[in-house]
Amino acid sequence: MQRMALVGAGFIGSVHAGNLAAHPGVDFALVYDVDPDRAQAVATRYGTVATTTIEDAFDPERIDAVFIASSTDSHADNLRRAADAGLAALCEKPIDKDLMAAIDVVDYVTARDGRVMMAFNRRFDRDYGALQRAVAAGDVGDVELIQMTSRGPVVPPLDYIKVSGGIMRDSAVHFFDLTRFIAGADPVEVFASGSALADPRIAQYDDVDTSAAILKLPSGAIVQIDSVRRTAYGYDERIEVMGSGGLIEAGRHVTGTVSRYGANSVVANGMPAGWFERVQPTYAATLDIFVTSVETGSPFSPSLTDGLKAQAIAEAATRSLTSGRSETISYPTPRAE
Amino acid sequence: MQRMALVGAGFIGSVHAGNLAAHPGVDFALVYDVDPDRAQAVATRYGTVATTTIEDAFDPERIDAVFIASSTDSHADNLRRAADAGLAALCEKPIDKDLMAAIDVVDYVTARDGRVMMAFNRRFDRDYGALQRAVAAGDVGDVELIQMTSRGPVVPPLDYIKVSGGIMRDSAVHFFDLTRFIAGADPVEVFASGSALADPRIAQYDDVDTSAAILKLPSGAIVQIDSVRRTAYGYDERIEVMGSGGLIEAGRHVTGTVSRYGANSVVANGMPAGWFERVQPTYAATLDIFVTSVETGSPFSPSLTDGLKAQAIAEAATRSLTSGRSETISYPTPRAE
Amino acid sequence: MQRMALVGAGFIGSVHAGNLAAHPGVDFALVYDVDPDRAQAVATRYGTVATTTIEDAFDPERIDAVFIASSTDSHADNLRRAADAGLAALCEKPIDKDLMAAIDVVDYVTARDGRVMMAFNRRFDRDYGALQRAVAAGDVGDVELIQMTSRGPVVPPLDYIKVSGGIMRDSAVHFFDLTRFIAGADPVEVFASGSALADPRIAQYDDVDTSAAILKLPSGAIVQIDSVRRTAYGYDERIEVMGSGGLIEAGRHVTGTVSRYGANSVVANGMPAGWFERVQPTYAATLDIFVTSVETGSPFSPSLTDGLKAQAIAEAATRSLTSGRSETISYPTPRAE
Amino acid sequence: MQRMALVGAGFIGSVHAGNLAAHPGVDFALVYDVDPDRAQAVATRYGTVATTTIEDAFDPERIDAVFIASSTDSHADNLRRAADAGLAALCEKPIDKDLMAAIDVVDYVTARDGRVMMAFNRRFDRDYGALQRAVAAGDVGDVELIQMTSRGPVVPPLDYIKVSGGIMRDSAVHFFDLTRFIAGADPVEVFASGSALADPRIAQYDDVDTSAAILKLPSGAIVQIDSVRRTAYGYDERIEVMGSGGLIEAGRHVTGTVSRYGANSVVANGMPAGWFERVQPTYAATLDIFVTSVETGSPFSPSLTDGLKAQAIAEAATRSLTSGRSETISYPTPRAE
Repeated sequence: MQRMALVGAGFIGSVHAGNLAAHPGVDFALVYDVDPDRAQAVATRYGTVATTTIEDAFDPERIDAVFIASSTDSHADNLRRAADAGLAALCEKPIDKDLMAAIDVVDYVTARDGRVMMAFNRRFDRDYGALQRAVAAGDVGDVELIQMTSRGPVVPPLDYIKVSGGIMRDSAVHFFDLTRFIAGADPVEVFASGSALADPRIAQYDDVDTSAAILKLPSGAIVQIDSVRRTAYGYDERIEVMGSGGLIEAGRHVTGTVSRYGANSVVANGMPAGWFERVQPTYAATLDIFVTSVETGSPFSPSLTDGLKAQAIAEAATRSLTSGRSETISYPTPRAE
Repeated sequence: MQRMALVGAGFIGSVHAGNLAAHPGVDFALVYDVDPDRAQAVATRYGTVATTTIEDAFDPERIDAVFIASSTDSHADNLRRAADAGLAALCEKPIDKDLMAAIDVVDYVTARDGRVMMAFNRRFDRDYGALQRAVAAGDVGDVELIQMTSRGPVVPPLDYIKVSGGIMRDSAVHFFDLTRFIAGADPVEVFASGSALADPRIAQYDDVDTSAAILKLPSGAIVQIDSVRRTAYGYDERIEVMGSGGLIEAGRHVTGTVSRYGANSVVANGMPAGWFERVQPTYAATLDIFVTSVETGSPFSPSLTDGLKAQAIAEAATRSLTSGRSETISYPTPRAE
Repeated sequence: MQRMALVGAGFIGSVHAGNLAAHPGVDFALVYDVDPDRAQAVATRYGTVATTTIEDAFDPERIDAVFIASSTDSHADNLRRAADAGLAALCEKPIDKDLMAAIDVVDYVTARDGRVMMAFNRRFDRDYGALQRAVAAGDVGDVELIQMTSRGPVVPPLDYIKVSGGIMRDSAVHFFDLTRFIAGADPVEVFASGSALADPRIAQYDDVDTSAAILKLPSGAIVQIDSVRRTAYGYDERIEVMGSGGLIEAGRHVTGTVSRYGANSVVANGMPAGWFERVQPTYAATLDIFVTSVETGSPFSPSLTDGLKAQAIAEAATRSLTSGRSETISYPTPRAE
Repeated sequence: MQRMALVGAGFIGSVHAGNLAAHPGVDFALVYDVDPDRAQAVATRYGTVATTTIEDAFDPERIDAVFIASSTDSHADNLRRAADAGLAALCEKPIDKDLMAAIDVVDYVTARDGRVMMAFNRRFDRDYGALQRAVAAGDVGDVELIQMTSRGPVVPPLDYIKVSGGIMRDSAVHFFDLTRFIAGADPVEVFASGSALADPRIAQYDDVDTSAAILKLPSGAIVQIDSVRRTAYGYDERIEVMGSGGLIEAGRHVTGTVSRYGANSVVANGMPAGWFERVQPTYAATLDIFVTSVETGSPFSPSLTDGLKAQAIAEAATRSLTSGRSETISYPTPRAE
């Protein structure tokens, strides 16, 4: 039974709270938020204790592991706190919006033998996991072409866009990580192109809302990723991996199996209304893997280095958006992991 | 907040326990089972109190509503207890295996203004609900043909078969209820045919494991229902409703969206391994409707009468299996509801 | 190169004419129709010779094989003519609407070593053929349940209904034949139920337009067939075969692969507008098999006996529509084949 | 009735011959090929006349329109011949492999008021036509993202690769044309990336077999096109168009509707074995549009200018493959059309 603290009780923190409460291997010991009311609300709903003192969440007398779901700008500090306390940590991405700052954190944590798993939850999607295992098992032969789609459904508020770091760092980064996860290789270059079509005001922040990127893997294999902020048809994700031996695809999700046959058409259920409906099951799966890793002492995956690498790809993609050329990806080298 | 007791902590009782614990409108006050250990296990897991005294579960001082998930032969007694105590009850089907005994219970409960909802959980399946609403809204015009499939995946143990009342009463009954629910009409006659193919020993109990039935509605519309105990491909349910204005279908469920394209085939995810994986979400939905009905005082649906009527169809279908002819369905007339 | 005559130049005769003209192994030598203009129109369109003398079509000096696509009431005479002339014949179903008369024809043809293939074209549907081969190869193990759907889209004119022999003989008969073809066994009993819902005037001819039937095979396996004259959603055929080892299905056809994703739905192409669009490719395939059989001297399949057996099932099904009980099917025994 | 000559009786010429013979509005008057035997074989099979004199095919006394299906290096000469003779021409792509030479031809033909339709047959694919009409009708709102896939199944012989002009000019060019057709706009820039993975020897001809391209439309809309020479799963084409109002997709084709349900999977029909099986119906559709345009005097579409523009995109894409940057597309300006 792992005694776990939750740091951060916003929307996604509440989701994690539900999963912490329901996990048979977790003693949901404590919740902290900068807003005491939010922490208390979660505590009441899920039968745990709220604290207004962040140090409580990193107290090794009471806590074995911490779930860091606080605001992005506090990830770095909280990762350092966990490392100082010798606690295992499950951390929302990114490590830090600034890649150089993120490298510093990784160095700090690594020097203290910190144990951190990055919560790239899409790795734990049922279907993407099946893809990764199939590719790793050689089911499609050598990977030659990967196509990923990540779309919508709503442009975030401009206040969010402004500080998001741009679509590559904020949104495509999940799929940069999935590229590495599924292909089992680090892309070497990336080209990206985009426009602000859904909300032209986004352009004033040097950002786009409709984009496509082409990456090249060391083998020469090609990866296409389209990232779009707004759709009129719900939230849309899909991945296909073509190799020398065949194709494997994780298709679109729909909200039911009902079909209506009319005179000239068949009308079926549409796509999930939002990203949350689509990826919700991945959060519990991510927590479950984390708990298992803590219990068994097996390596945390995705690791901090995985977090850094996804960010490094996003950096190069962001440069390409303005340079108009394919950018070489340079991966950071933390002192060790 | 409804204070609810759970009577019955077997497999399905445990499922209900999880839903009772998670429902924000329910105070899961108490659990009873004939086996104290089972009750205690559920109490420990879901943070409630176990009792060894069944009367506790029907104590109006402590309890507002009871979930009757005990063994079939105790349903009748527990329905009477709830009526005596003036508690609302959510009851697993059937009311009683014996239709005459079931009618007696309904009379008893009705005389005491009992409030009972029958837990025909498939009515609360997301896709079947969509069918029902579409039909009720006239989306397919006048209903002309309904096709229902209910299959597998495993023949129950012979000890269960022996006392099950046969495939029509035990399994097809869910679809007899769905027929009434979706068509909004009571079938007038039924023909059924079947064989013991999966396990020929079933024949010695005058039962079959592979069957099909044809019902006729008062309008002349035709309903086909195939009920099969064993499949080699998982659990398979589907319904389609054809009307004068089109067709609506609730299709097969599969376990994911992964497809593998090979030289001459596309291999996709298969069907759910068992009935439980397929219908699991319907249990929480059923409870939710019950709680809402209790809170709002709206009529309970499906009602005891619905329960009797589904049983009456099963009786006629069972007769038809041996008579070789279409049997008229006679619905019981309890004194009132 | 087989010199072939076409007898009958109505709608379906014209379809056969196009296939005769296009088949590289056929010399489309001659066309006859009771209406000389129709024969001439086909002759002009497809570059062959029209005749007003039916004997020309059965002249062994000029003709090797005859395609009998004339009106149903002339099938018997034309089959006798082909037998007298020693010509191979491909004959539209039925042999004769009257089962006793049909038996007489078969006896007559058999006594003269006549070579006849019945044009049950659905046996040569790409997908149904795949089902038959899969079942024959044991891919689904022992057959346990077959579900067939045959629907719409339009109620034929009442003048046609009046002389059609009823829905079982006229429409379901194709699927009675497919049952034998796919299951490789002769059903032993059949129950049928139906109503006149699409056009209540059909009832005055003791016929129905919406029906379902349950057949039992010697093994105890169950077959469900729904036959419906009218749909609001195009022409609908599908077959599934469940066995002890799995399920194989020939699914619905749609008219294209276009899908439109909107806010809450995916709208895809609908079903074929009519039966002809759905089954068109089967006609050329049927002709091709016939030509191959003539060239190689291999047995004709489906045979006259197959034609008689499908009719015999339709007879029993027609009786059941009014008797309300499962009828035993008695197969005719022609002297030999 | 248009008197038509076919110039070129190779594989694809033979396909056109069958369509010319079957089209009710065409008098298939003559066939020419540099190889007299090939011309004769086609003439015999389809009941027309073979000639060894190419001038016969452009003789306005005998011919109204010419189908130019000869080898690519003779397209230019044959287009000039048709213009000189005042004949309408349906011409296989490209006009000439060399873009400058192609511009000269267009100038020549235009000066003589030549009437030419380019045989970009994919425009006449049933499903792609539906996409184009839907987009033109505003069904998806403003186009924002197009995704096109064109794959396999087999790497052509190296002798072909050597003279093909590369994957962008030879293969992707169809989809560059479809981009203009469906989006109704001329892309302004293109980035392309690729590798020789299926057959590394292709690299020695500065060509690739696995590629992806990103184009930008004047509106800022993004187009992704992946072109791959080799697949292990048959021939694969699909297109999706996302706009501000929804998504429309022309999905993968499969070879049938058969599904096999097994313990953990559903195995369905795979994709077409080759490109020909997939696109075959488009040839007759292309011819039909041409004949209608000739008969009605309506403008030929796609026009010679359409042919030039698709080539111009391919030129820029080819440059990008080596430059590593997004290339501006400069469209040729023929004197007039």
